[in-house]
Amino acid sequence: MYNNIKVIAFDADDTLWVNETYFREAENEFAELLSKYETKNKIDQELFMKEIENLKFYGYGVKGFVLSMIESALELSNYKINPKTLEKILNIGKEMLEKPIELLDGVEEVLEKLQGKYKLIVATKGDLLDQERKLEKSNLLKYFHHIEVMSDKKAKDYQKLVKHLDIHPSELLMIGNSLKSDILPLIEIGSEAIHVPFHTTWAHEEVTDEEQFTSNYKTVLNIKEVLPLF
Amino acid sequence: MYNNIKVIAFDADDTLWVNETYFREAENEFAELLSKYETKNKIDQELFMKEIENLKFYGYGVKGFVLSMIESALELSNYKINPKTLEKILNIGKEMLEKPIELLDGVEEVLEKLQGKYKLIVATKGDLLDQERKLEKSNLLKYFHHIEVMSDKKAKDYQKLVKHLDIHPSELLMIGNSLKSDILPLIEIGSEAIHVPFHTTWAHEEVTDEEQFTSNYKTVLNIKEVLPLF
Repeated sequence: MYNNIKVIAFDADDTLWVNETYFREAENEFAELLSKYETKNKIDQELFMKEIENLKFYGYGVKGFVLSMIESALELSNYKINPKTLEKILNIGKEMLEKPIELLDGVEEVLEKLQGKYKLIVATKGDLLDQERKLEKSNLLKYFHHIEVMSDKKAKDYQKLVKHLDIHPSELLMIGNSLKSDILPLIEIGSEAIHVPFHTTWAHEEVTDEEQFTSNYKTVLNIKEVLPLF
Repeated sequence: MYNNIKVIAFDADDTLWVNETYFREAENEFAELLSKYETKNKIDQELFMKEIENLKFYGYGVKGFVLSMIESALELSNYKINPKTLEKILNIGKEMLEKPIELLDGVEEVLEKLQGKYKLIVATKGDLLDQERKLEKSNLLKYFHHIEVMSDKKAKDYQKLVKHLDIHPSELLMIGNSLKSDILPLIEIGSEAIHVPFHTTWAHEEVTDEEQFTSNYKTVLNIKEVLPLF
């Protein structure tokens, strides 16, 4: 089926290991810290809007998330926030950066079986330092040729990746949990993609039914199910 | 002289364009905002120590710098800082991310002459998004095969880079302004390096005389002087 493939790129967060869950927990702690100013719903909404507004400055990853939490805290409190609370927000960020790695089921088995047969890479849009640290903690480093950190995961970014790898788009297969970031842009540039959904999706990563059902890719519920496809 | 070279890697900040100057300006604005709590000297010192302490969490780049400014502001003010001042600190960061690009003299000429003859890459330890944005603004994108963002620039990081490029260390030449980050680790792994000093060096990047004078690399005062070496 995938005879032509030379490079298999794996998304990292929520494909190899748990991540989005930690952002949800951080958002809950943040809402708790600000609960005297606004309802949880309103706080969640404001933080999300702030994150989107700041993407152009900060891109993706924990550091930008923390900066957006601080900015939201200033505004939601009408600049009455206690500086000690801001220190707690900085600490939420540091704790996120120190979380242990919880591998998703089947990941190691898949990497073990595919290594040597394909060039395996990680393609992620988080912070490089953070992703390298996670990869080291995960003990998965040995399976990968390198980590490809992308500032975004749109079609043009994957075109850059293909150029960088010196391959034809049809020689790249991506495996990931986000339809918007890991699957649809690959189909658009003529690469292959396999979708492995994670139970939690960040609102920014959600796609419409139309986008989802007019594309041509495989979906598996556990990453192990990719193995019979090769 | 460099007959064996296949890839030339350019450091970005303070090698291709001005950068450290903007950090110095930001530090001055920061000290001004906190001037009622401490002397400029003390503020500079505390911020520097905070940055070093936080490198393990945040790595290099503007976002980590802003997070360290906020943490320092909380501590230097003994948690009495006005939240409006923290908003100003966030804005210093956003302004840094939006600075225009000021190319250093000779850069474009060098890239023009070397392109096609070697694979040219950018090797930087800043934030990927920020570096990509700068490269786009600089109009230098067309000269480079890709940007290599490194979480650090120690010998082991350059070994990873060489592996990633599928070349021998002796086939890599690095051009950059930081002895500590762009020159000495390259010599250590058996690659070539050319040092182009910039007038301002961040204290963290300074090296001892001994490190500096026991190594084997070229120094030029303007990047254009690399051309006769090829």
